Formats: sequence, structure tokens, C-alpha cells
Amino acid sequence: MPKISQKGQAMPESPIRKLVPFAEDAKKRGNKIYQLNIGQPDIKTPQVALDAVKNNNIEVLAYARSEGSEAYRKKLAAYYHKNNIHVSANDIIVTTGGSEALSFTLGAITDAGDEVIIPEPFYANYNGFSTANNTKVIPIVSSIDDGFALPAIEDFEKLITSKTRAILICNPGNPTGYLYSKEEIEKLKALVLKYDLFLIADEVYREFVYDGNTHNSVMSLDGLEQNAIMIDSVSKRYSMCGARIGCVVSKNKDFIKTILKFAQARLSSPTYALMASEAALETPQSYFDEVIVEYVARRDILISELNKIPNLKVSTPKGAFYCIVELPVADADDFAQWMLEKFEDNNETIMVAPASGFYSTPGSGKNQIRIAYVLNKESLIRSVELLKLALEQYNS
Amino acid sequence: MPKISQKGQAMPESPIRKLVPFAEDAKKRGNKIYQLNIGQPDIKTPQVALDAVKNNNIEVLAYARSEGSEAYRKKLAAYYHKNNIHVSANDIIVTTGGSEALSFTLGAITDAGDEVIIPEPFYANYNGFSTANNTKVIPIVSSIDDGFALPAIEDFEKLITSKTRAILICNPGNPTGYLYSKEEIEKLKALVLKYDLFLIADEVYREFVYDGNTHNSVMSLDGLEQNAIMIDSVSKRYSMCGARIGCVVSKNKDFIKTILKFAQARLSSPTYALMASEAALETPQSYFDEVIVEYVARRDILISELNKIPNLKVSTPKGAFYCIVELPVADADDFAQWMLEKFEDNNETIMVAPASGFYSTPGSGKNQIRIAYVLNKESLIRSVELLKLALEQYNS
Repeated sequence: MPKISQKGQAMPESPIRKLVPFAEDAKKRGNKIYQLNIGQPDIKTPQVALDAVKNNNIEVLAYARSEGSEAYRKKLAAYYHKNNIHVSANDIIVTTGGSEALSFTLGAITDAGDEVIIPEPFYANYNGFSTANNTKVIPIVSSIDDGFALPAIEDFEKLITSKTRAILICNPGNPTGYLYSKEEIEKLKALVLKYDLFLIADEVYREFVYDGNTHNSVMSLDGLEQNAIMIDSVSKRYSMCGARIGCVVSKNKDFIKTILKFAQARLSSPTYALMASEAALETPQSYFDEVIVEYVARRDILISELNKIPNLKVSTPKGAFYCIVELPVADADDFAQWMLEKFEDNNETIMVAPASGFYSTPGSGKNQIRIAYVLNKESLIRSVELLKLALEQYNS
Repeated sequence: MPKISQKGQAMPESPIRKLVPFAEDAKKRGNKIYQLNIGQPDIKTPQVALDAVKNNNIEVLAYARSEGSEAYRKKLAAYYHKNNIHVSANDIIVTTGGSEALSFTLGAITDAGDEVIIPEPFYANYNGFSTANNTKVIPIVSSIDDGFALPAIEDFEKLITSKTRAILICNPGNPTGYLYSKEEIEKLKALVLKYDLFLIADEVYREFVYDGNTHNSVMSLDGLEQNAIMIDSVSKRYSMCGARIGCVVSKNKDFIKTILKFAQARLSSPTYALMASEAALETPQSYFDEVIVEYVARRDILISELNKIPNLKVSTPKGAFYCIVELPVADADDFAQWMLEKFEDNNETIMVAPASGFYSTPGSGKNQIRIAYVLNKESLIRSVELLKLALEQYNS
């Protein structure tokens, strides 16, 4: 029998999705499941985006331009301007989700065995995209005790080798909810300039910043033009995860030219979704204002309820809609699966993402889970109640 | 300045798309361009697929299942049954176009430096997907003089090394239009079984088979279950290239399990396009009958007109909607660009794909172009007239 590649064997299972079969079994047994495992918000997609697709008059569903239409990229540039990110349409390549944007980026800047340093815990699929590109992830540990702040720059420097090509951050952070300060971004700028590295920032949660804080894009720093790469997506901003539209943004022309070659090879992003994404740029500000109020209320209730559980640790997220929770269990993978397989209260249970998959250092995050607060407040209160009951039962 | 990877530098420009900027300039000068460069048919997408999207009642555009819904995969399996391909829903992973299907496949079966043997000329983007996956393409030359029939098996054997992981064919062929016979497929079966290789068949043109011939799928051969991998797509079948929905099909469970991990990392295929693709399976047979009649008529007129041009060679395609044309020019890349930049007749010109990008052997196909006969008969007649005039002018 012909063999699977070492790469294929090394591809990680998604910690966000690997429990799906257990959840389906639980549903078949008649249980209701509160899904906190995946960043799939329940927020309505803007009507203007939905309408653009419903009212389309396509007769031949044709390829789009590989890099996205000039019209869409110009509108994107205008949107970025409003966010203090001064780029032009030519600095943007439209991609099939932030996923493809990141995968193309790793392809454009790393050869087999090259290294990218990523503060951990990090978005689990960075492991997958790296494996697929033969890129080596070099994790640098951030800690729940200081809310997952940027590790010391000296610690980064210790990890830099001749193979290091980039530092990758997610800001605001998935799964941590951490928002990097201006000072932290400036420190990273100095570091990448010193060592001639790319600084890749996954900024798909740009809009989800709370408590009067400001988001600091890597694209807004003078002198970083040749090093900064921004990953973006419409998925979270407009609650349209199923569109699969994102983009890569950089002022480095060699880099963008290279990304275009990757984009041309796969021909185009999905045409209907491009229509929705372009229309979504007309979403009124009131939509975002309401969404942010809702997420802050969700975060506040979630954190306050979680803090009532004994021996549990959680850091208050400043952005995005996730938090890492440290539980009084030895193996959160086992516990999360157990909640789906063996636990129920009034025929209800919860689904969470075990955090170990968000680390690359073996054994890290074993007692942690990621919670996505993408459900309404009542559901979150009930979810935490279920978590509390489950912990009591599991630990007795 | 941080560097682009060797991989990024090696990524080929798409021969199908690299002339787009010259075409846009020509349009700005007021020229009409007959686009024969890209397999973007002018055929209407089935109404049932268009309606499914227009009548959708999505409120939250959510992620789909990574592998495609069970409902869609079951319907796909039923469609394959009708085509003598007996697979179940569990043998199918839905992908974002045939492009992603092929890229995932190379990732699942090749490590950096591993080799895949491909008869050339081959679909140009195989070069791109291979480069992106650090896979080495080993070309084996097929010839216009026998219509691009399968090269001798002894020639394949000479190329097999310890690094060889698979043989990749496109059947019916893009860009050749060649349809492999039962005997040829059986020979490949014996070869891959002898050397324990995968046999990957890109069968996206399955429906486009002419002159009473039969398509022979690698999935229909007994004893090849662990070796056969089929790449498929809705793009051509339903003239919905912009959907970006395809799939990988195999009965090799280790392989499918590995593909699922790649699929999970990128979360899901585009949701609107999945709705269209599932609905498209209800397309009446009359649609395909009409389409095939139309393509045969187009092919016949194209080939007969082309054969009137002196010193031109073309082999009659038995399937798909492409042909390779050998021109009386030294450098078809230059000629194709020249037709857009310098040539016009009555403010009209044509755009073709230089064939060199469909070869991996340097210097091959330099005097060839690929023509996609995706325009109506009148346009094809005028296109060949323009080609004839252009050749006369270019060569004088």
C-alpha cells in the first residue's frame, strides 16, 4: 500500500473540530450542546451583504480575478484608511479566507525547515498551515498569569537562528483575547528590523477591541513597510465565516508579487462570497457598535461567572471573543470529551476546545481549554453552570 | 529587507493569467478580445444551482463542515454511482475547488523533494501546486504527433526512483484534449501496483467526452482501491468555475483521514457555493446533452478552421475543451503577448495561453499555444481568422 507522507502524518487534528463526532453522538442521544468550541458567532451577517447575494443576477458563475477585483481592493483600501492603515489596492491580494492568506504567506517566505517564532498559545491552525508548508513553528511561551502579554524580547532573541524568517502574532489574540500595546508592537518592530525578519500580524479581530483600548496594526508603523505583513478576513468582522474571504496586505512589493503567483495557481476566490464581502463594506457603523456592546456584555458575564468556580483561572480578554481557562483537571482533552460522552444536566452539556492544540510545546496547556463567547448571555450563564457541575462530577 | 523564499521565487507565473495586464491595456485602447486563454466557458450555469443561492434564507453565513455536509457527500456518491464509480460519502472530502483537492493530495502523499511523474504537456497549475508543496514534478513527454497518447510504460519506469510517490494524469486532458483508453489506464494500474505508487487522476472533464467514447475512471478499476485518488470539481461540469467547489475521492482510508486534517485546518469550503453545488446535482440530463452537442460543434469548427492555416499543427481533442496548437513561430510567448500589444484587425484581437507553461521541461512547447474553445462558433471562426492574420503579420 502506498504511504502517507511524513507531513501528512504530522498534520495535527484540529482541537476545535476533533470533538465533533462526540458532539454528534450526544445530539443523537437527545442532548442540547452549548457550542463554545468554535469562533462561529451567532451574530447576524449584515443585511447588505446577504442582500447582495440574494439579488445577484449571475448567469454564468465565472472565475473572479485571482487577486480580487480592482473595485473590491480599492474599497478595502478605503476601509483600511479609516483604521489608520494607509495602503493602496495594489498592496492587497484577496484570498480564500484568512486561512489561505496565512498559508500563502508561509509559502512565500519560508522554505522547508525554515522557522517562524509564534507566542503560544496561538491559533491552533497555525500548526496545520506550518506543517502543510514544511515550516517549523518555534513557540515562545506567554503566560496566563500576566494575561498572555508579549514575552520578553530577550527570550525572542534567544530563539532566533539562521533559519528564522518571521515572527507571527495574532492581535487581538485568538485564543488569548490579549491586545498588544503600542509599546509591545514597537518592540517587535525593533526586533524584526534588527534581524531582518518579517512581522506577520493576524488582525482579523481588529474591530473586537474593548474597554476604550486602541488596536495597533503592524501596518501603521513607519519604517516597517518592507517587513510588515497583515492577514485579514471578513469572517469575524461581519459574522460571515462561511464566506471564506480574506486578504494578505503588505507594502513589500516582492512579497505581494509572490503572493499573486500563489493566488493565480488556485485561479480565484469564490465569486458569490466576493459579492457578499464587497457589499459588507457598506455595513453601517451602528452594526459594529451594537456588536461590540454585545460582546463586552458577554465577556463580562462569562468572566464573572467563571470566577465563581473554585480553583479555576481565567484572564480577562481585552479583545476578540475567546479566553483561555485553566481548569482543576489534569487532562482537559479527556475532560472535554467526557463532557460530551458522559455528562449531561437536564439533557444539556457544553463543547469546548481543549487548549493543548493551541500550543506547540508538547505537554503545554494540558489543563486549559479555550472558550469562544459566541453565544448570548443566557446561554453563557447556563454554559458556565454546566461547566461547574461537570467539574464537580468529573473530579469526584 | 527580509527575503522571499526560494519556493516563492520558484512559483511559476500562470501562463493562463500572466497576459491579463496586456489584455486590459488592449481593452483600454478600445479593442475587443476573444478570450481563448482560460477554461471559462460562456455556457449558462444550470438554473437550479443559481436559484438555490438566490432563494437562500441564510441569516448567519456560517462555516460549513470541513469535509462537506453528509447530505452533499451522499448525493455526490449517488452521482458517481451513475458514472460507474462506486464510492460512499466517507470516501469523499469536499474541497475549495479542484485546485485545493490537488494541493491537499500532494501534501498528504509527498514530503519535500518527493517526486510525482506527470505526462506533459499538463495543466499548468500542477507546477504551482507542486512548488507550493515542495514536491518535484518529473515530466514525461507526450507528443502532438500521436495526439498526446500515454507515453510508453518503459519510459515511465525509467523515471521511477525511491522518491517517486505518484503518477498524475488529467483525463480527459487539459491542455491536450486526449482521452486515455481502457488499455492505457490498465497499464498505469499495473505500473503503480508494481511500484506501490498512488495514481492520481484529475477527472474534472469527465462529462466532456465526444464521438461516442467512454470515460475510464481510475476509481472503476478492481484492485486499485488503495492506490487510486480522483480529483474532481463542479467548475466545468456545471459551468460554475467561480463556485470553487471540488473534492478528493479515494477508498484509501489512511489517505482520506489525512486529507480531512488538511481540510479541518482551513475550516470549510465556501457556504454559498456549497449550496449551489448541491443543487447542481439536480441538473437535468438535457442540459448536458445540449452542452456536449455544442462543444462538439465548436471543436469541429475550430479544428477545421485551424487546419486551413499553413504550417500549423493541431491534434483533434477527444474530450475536455482545449487543444494544443503548434504555430509557425519560434516563441509563442512573445507572439501571444504581441497579439495583445501590437495586433488588431477591426479593433479585435485574441488572447491565448502560451503552452510553455504547460511543460516542466525547460524549452518545451515554445512554439505551441493552448486554445480553450469556450466561445460560440461565430466567435471561434473569427478568432481563427484573427490568428491567421496575426501570424501573417508577425512573420512578415
